[in-house]
Amino acid sequence: MARPDDVPTILGFVRELAEFERLLDRVCATEDDLRASLFGARPYAEVVLAESDGPVGFALFFHNYSTFLGRPGIYLEDIYVRPEARGRGVGRALMAYVARLAVERGCGRFEWAVLDWNSRAIAFYRSLGAEAMDEWTVYRLTGKPLERLADAYVPSTARRGT
Amino acid sequence: MARPDDVPTILGFVRELAEFERLLDRVCATEDDLRASLFGARPYAEVVLAESDGPVGFALFFHNYSTFLGRPGIYLEDIYVRPEARGRGVGRALMAYVARLAVERGCGRFEWAVLDWNSRAIAFYRSLGAEAMDEWTVYRLTGKPLERLADAYVPSTARRGT
Repeated sequence: MARPDDVPTILGFVRELAEFERLLDRVCATEDDLRASLFGARPYAEVVLAESDGPVGFALFFHNYSTFLGRPGIYLEDIYVRPEARGRGVGRALMAYVARLAVERGCGRFEWAVLDWNSRAIAFYRSLGAEAMDEWTVYRLTGKPLERLADAYVPSTARRGT
Repeated sequence: MARPDDVPTILGFVRELAEFERLLDRVCATEDDLRASLFGARPYAEVVLAESDGPVGFALFFHNYSTFLGRPGIYLEDIYVRPEARGRGVGRALMAYVARLAVERGCGRFEWAVLDWNSRAIAFYRSLGAEAMDEWTVYRLTGKPLERLADAYVPSTARRGT
């Protein structure tokens, strides 16, 4: 697993992946953000680096949860292999590492999301036996609409007191 | 937030929601599973109950993570309101409660998935300002294919030693 001094490497990979995804303008994470959220008092995700004469790729993941199974799963937020290191099974090895962890930790599922135009990645995922959750769409609330909904919270209505 | 003695209520809601989603045959969680994974040494998700003369709904969520933001988010796995309690703002109050937590905890995003045929829910989510992540599809590895990939893991290739 990665260590705090890998943070610059991790941020470099995050930016390279975002560039490939044509989403680089969305990256606002700083090294301090990653250090605090990945290696602070409450780590929110885990990172594994692939190495071959230095780091050539990474996978970043966290535990999700299935109420249908009553068990945690693993959600892979990012997987990336540098262009010059592709075609040598590095991506597959990273996926296998995370799958191994999932099984060891009693997780029922290993999941991730892919951009619909990334046909090469989709073919790879299908070759592993992964199934597309085609009938589901993720919705996201962020920025002002998130703040607006948060402000609408009235303590007495929704919740059983802790 | 819910307590261990709410587990039977939570499992009841999980099953009612699954029935509505036409996925009841996929539910294999038991009360023991939920107790261990939600209220054990490492709780994998949090639950809030909506009450009105007894429990009428729930939301179950956990922290996800965004590498683009370098911050955690909140992922809502389940939200459910009993039919007889609908139309009174209970769902909105549950969503607002979770949004409030997200803001308080410095999360950049609040996300969830919806079945594409659930047009009533989709209209509700859009009314909150949520954006559909239409260009992404979730892939899932489970059962035998997950075990097969886990078995393919060879310690030396993928990973920087811990």
